[in-house]
Amino acid sequence: MNTAILLLSCPDKPGLIAEVTNFITYNNGNIIYLDQYVDHIEKIFFMRMEWSLEKFLIAPEKIEEYFETLYAQKHQMQFKLYFTDRKPRMAIFVSKMSHCLYDMLARYTAGEWQVEIPLIVSNHEDLRPAAERFGIPYHVFPITKDNKAEFEPKEMALLQENNIDFIVLARYMQIISEDMIKAYPNNIINIHHSFLPAFVGAKPYHAAYARGVKLIGATSHYVTADLDAGPIIEQDVTRITHKDTVDDLVTKGKDLEKIVLSHAVQKHIEHKVLAFKNKTIIFN
Amino acid sequence: MNTAILLLSCPDKPGLIAEVTNFITYNNGNIIYLDQYVDHIEKIFFMRMEWSLEKFLIAPEKIEEYFETLYAQKHQMQFKLYFTDRKPRMAIFVSKMSHCLYDMLARYTAGEWQVEIPLIVSNHEDLRPAAERFGIPYHVFPITKDNKAEFEPKEMALLQENNIDFIVLARYMQIISEDMIKAYPNNIINIHHSFLPAFVGAKPYHAAYARGVKLIGATSHYVTADLDAGPIIEQDVTRITHKDTVDDLVTKGKDLEKIVLSHAVQKHIEHKVLAFKNKTIIFN
Amino acid sequence: MNTAILLLSCPDKPGLIAEVTNFITYNNGNIIYLDQYVDHIEKIFFMRMEWSLEKFLIAPEKIEEYFETLYAQKHQMQFKLYFTDRKPRMAIFVSKMSHCLYDMLARYTAGEWQVEIPLIVSNHEDLRPAAERFGIPYHVFPITKDNKAEFEPKEMALLQENNIDFIVLARYMQIISEDMIKAYPNNIINIHHSFLPAFVGAKPYHAAYARGVKLIGATSHYVTADLDAGPIIEQDVTRITHKDTVDDLVTKGKDLEKIVLSHAVQKHIEHKVLAFKNKTIIFN
Amino acid sequence: MNTAILLLSCPDKPGLIAEVTNFITYNNGNIIYLDQYVDHIEKIFFMRMEWSLEKFLIAPEKIEEYFETLYAQKHQMQFKLYFTDRKPRMAIFVSKMSHCLYDMLARYTAGEWQVEIPLIVSNHEDLRPAAERFGIPYHVFPITKDNKAEFEPKEMALLQENNIDFIVLARYMQIISEDMIKAYPNNIINIHHSFLPAFVGAKPYHAAYARGVKLIGATSHYVTADLDAGPIIEQDVTRITHKDTVDDLVTKGKDLEKIVLSHAVQKHIEHKVLAFKNKTIIFN
Repeated sequence: MNTAILLLSCPDKPGLIAEVTNFITYNNGNIIYLDQYVDHIEKIFFMRMEWSLEKFLIAPEKIEEYFETLYAQKHQMQFKLYFTDRKPRMAIFVSKMSHCLYDMLARYTAGEWQVEIPLIVSNHEDLRPAAERFGIPYHVFPITKDNKAEFEPKEMALLQENNIDFIVLARYMQIISEDMIKAYPNNIINIHHSFLPAFVGAKPYHAAYARGVKLIGATSHYVTADLDAGPIIEQDVTRITHKDTVDDLVTKGKDLEKIVLSHAVQKHIEHKVLAFKNKTIIFN
Repeated sequence: MNTAILLLSCPDKPGLIAEVTNFITYNNGNIIYLDQYVDHIEKIFFMRMEWSLEKFLIAPEKIEEYFETLYAQKHQMQFKLYFTDRKPRMAIFVSKMSHCLYDMLARYTAGEWQVEIPLIVSNHEDLRPAAERFGIPYHVFPITKDNKAEFEPKEMALLQENNIDFIVLARYMQIISEDMIKAYPNNIINIHHSFLPAFVGAKPYHAAYARGVKLIGATSHYVTADLDAGPIIEQDVTRITHKDTVDDLVTKGKDLEKIVLSHAVQKHIEHKVLAFKNKTIIFN
Repeated sequence: MNTAILLLSCPDKPGLIAEVTNFITYNNGNIIYLDQYVDHIEKIFFMRMEWSLEKFLIAPEKIEEYFETLYAQKHQMQFKLYFTDRKPRMAIFVSKMSHCLYDMLARYTAGEWQVEIPLIVSNHEDLRPAAERFGIPYHVFPITKDNKAEFEPKEMALLQENNIDFIVLARYMQIISEDMIKAYPNNIINIHHSFLPAFVGAKPYHAAYARGVKLIGATSHYVTADLDAGPIIEQDVTRITHKDTVDDLVTKGKDLEKIVLSHAVQKHIEHKVLAFKNKTIIFN
Repeated sequence: MNTAILLLSCPDKPGLIAEVTNFITYNNGNIIYLDQYVDHIEKIFFMRMEWSLEKFLIAPEKIEEYFETLYAQKHQMQFKLYFTDRKPRMAIFVSKMSHCLYDMLARYTAGEWQVEIPLIVSNHEDLRPAAERFGIPYHVFPITKDNKAEFEPKEMALLQENNIDFIVLARYMQIISEDMIKAYPNNIINIHHSFLPAFVGAKPYHAAYARGVKLIGATSHYVTADLDAGPIIEQDVTRITHKDTVDDLVTKGKDLEKIVLSHAVQKHIEHKVLAFKNKTIIFN
């Protein structure tokens, strides 16, 4: 069944829900999901609505224009429209660790995610066998801190040829350049192996061990130009004790990382994440 | 600021949100909160809406009548209307354990709950000092399994004299009779010291110890005629190990019980719980 | 580095720790891990000790005999001895769902588990591609409720040819017969998709949905003749809301199931689980 | 039943457990609890042992001398000895918020803690009624950032007159001076309302809100000269969403704070915390 999903934000005022739901109802759409939220400090209204297109009077390719003309310009709405019969296309970037990659490929292969994964990118050869196991093309660009200017344009070209909508950094150990970030705003999802904002940067498990914390965490966020400081999508923690070595933290952390990252990616695939300023609204 | 809260359920159909929000918007009400949910299996629409009465054109005492006349009868809605300037009145029933009682009285005394607690009822004298510390009348009815017919009518009279809206069983160790349950439908909140439906009935910590579970739980639910089987409001668990004795489970469980019960009571006070059949919808 | 691991239980009495640690220390072993626990109700002493064999004066193949002669018979000890240079051999049984299987194969392939997985057994063809991706032989026995007597002996023969030490039921949907359970006492690990003892038996997510619980769980346990009632190794829960359908519970539950099962299997591989009566001692 | 508790640390070497347990066993003590841990990086051995004094051959007042003479000097052990028939004496410092105070007083009054609480200190009058409810003397010193030199000596005198062993800062909003910290090394327990090391310093809930985290936390730690950087005893987190305002974080955080602080205090009372460098070993 094809449905349309509308994600919108605009300055809050009375009557917005009625206004938007009327648009659907009057045109024979059946709302199958609605979640809205008002940020009373920023005075912004946020909404996610999904409706059946079966009897909807407006043709899918015309909805954006109609909504823009009739509602968005009137209420200063920013909105995005998605259709569930068009699967988003996702690229995975990896380095050497396989746990997040396998977790995503297992979900993908089992048909749990409404997504296409046409390619995997890496700066190392290590995970080529993992990619081949699942029949996904694996492209190596031997990027280092010093040669990004050489390889990133090639990466970007590959992504564009493949119509990639969003990128998942699955423990990819290189910093993404500002050009790529600008090309995929709020469309690059990273997993950081700490409970941000604690332990920003390299070697967070070593830092957690040194500080003697009793919980370790993982954080999935959109990548912005500011390292490990983009809008947080999902976080979780697990308990550790004084008995856990740095290696134990790495082992326990892997399970956190893969689940937190996959949950964030799933929300993104379902168009349930709306980034606003440096935060996210997560619709149910 | 006085606001009105509407809790409603009705058979689902298109346009209900628009219909109800229009009622507020057209009459100059400002919706400050809306949460809705459709049970697609039962085909029931549920909604909680809160709006400011400041400029609302319909007088508070007339809202129920207008809503019934204009909307409820048309859409077969069941609804309840509350006003935040009228605090609900709550009775606490206790036996000998103090942890849940103190937790609630601390919140109440600190002004965290918009509720009145005019009285505490017990079947034992033990917690009179606790009640007196907080200046709340303490009534003892020495109820046992065998003399309920004698004392419950007196309890009921006391509750009615004090205009009690709902009852919290804070580790009260007597079974409530069907008459009292009928008098307070979905208005008697119990805390059961297990993760229901595991370990129904007496001595759940002993049963948990015997079974060798790795987590213990607590469950807050509305009391129905069916023991420990009413609609669940809130649950939580905590980790235990083989090292924990039954006494350790009791100690760890107390913190679970008091937090789970207080959270359930808070949701109830805020009119965020809607019981339907044997389940609850919990609005945010 | 080769180490020995001793798991023991015996009637408690003063001096047992000193007695056992002396055995290691006097013979130039270096204890690198010791965890002990006394069940004061059963009056049983439990211990797990790991020591380096580098300078140990007793040859590995003689340790069992010496320990039996010098200590075990004197103190009525039951014990098991393992060496870390001998990897246990594990069979995985699956039906149609892949999430637990992939989670284990990802860990295995990444070298995280000190185990051999020589074969996968199923009652369906569905997961053959998953097994083949990881190069593990996949054997189908079309077992149903009614033909167990025909196929189980063949399964047993296969397991014995492959020197299987323990079996993991990764959402395997057939009940294991008593003969197989007797052949692998406390060596068949199951994952049940509920927080046991709640929702024993078939369709626990449907039962959880019907009861309206606010948390769902997963339980990994050793299989005994009594269905879903064996010693629990690991459990965990995750929060759900009234908005979650049965399908949502299934989706959320999969992540619980795979993590809980893999953690239980990991503990078993590391010889950190000691089953006693119907419970487990889990050493750190 | 009077028992002795020994907390010790020393450079690790083979045979330490045997050595220490022999001391108890040879002298007719019955070990009722033993937990040990080796930090293989620092090469330090840590141990907590509790034994019955009933038939122990060495008089309680002589144990420290004997242990020092026979073992501690030989193995460079640092140790502390406690007797369960001598309750530690605890002072509570508060400012204006009551939730942690009530939580501790409820446990104390119910007899759950083996501790004496002879006094409460505050820089404000606000919580005098709370203290009086539980019959505990309440002393106000109107300390500010600028007049510490005047009032802290008076506080210190009061603490010494009352033989205070340790201090609990229950949302006390003044920074403790270095003199007081030196007088109570690893004996001042603070609760910080964030998941440290995230959000050190003032207004952590505002900072958490601004950052858009999906979990908030609380951390109980020993106070050192370095603000919010002392050894962590206990931490926990709870889930929040984009819908939670700063006020909601404060409300949800209160429950975390009180439970985390009370659990840390309980561990301290039971002599189960051993601070080493800037971390803690928490014995079960």
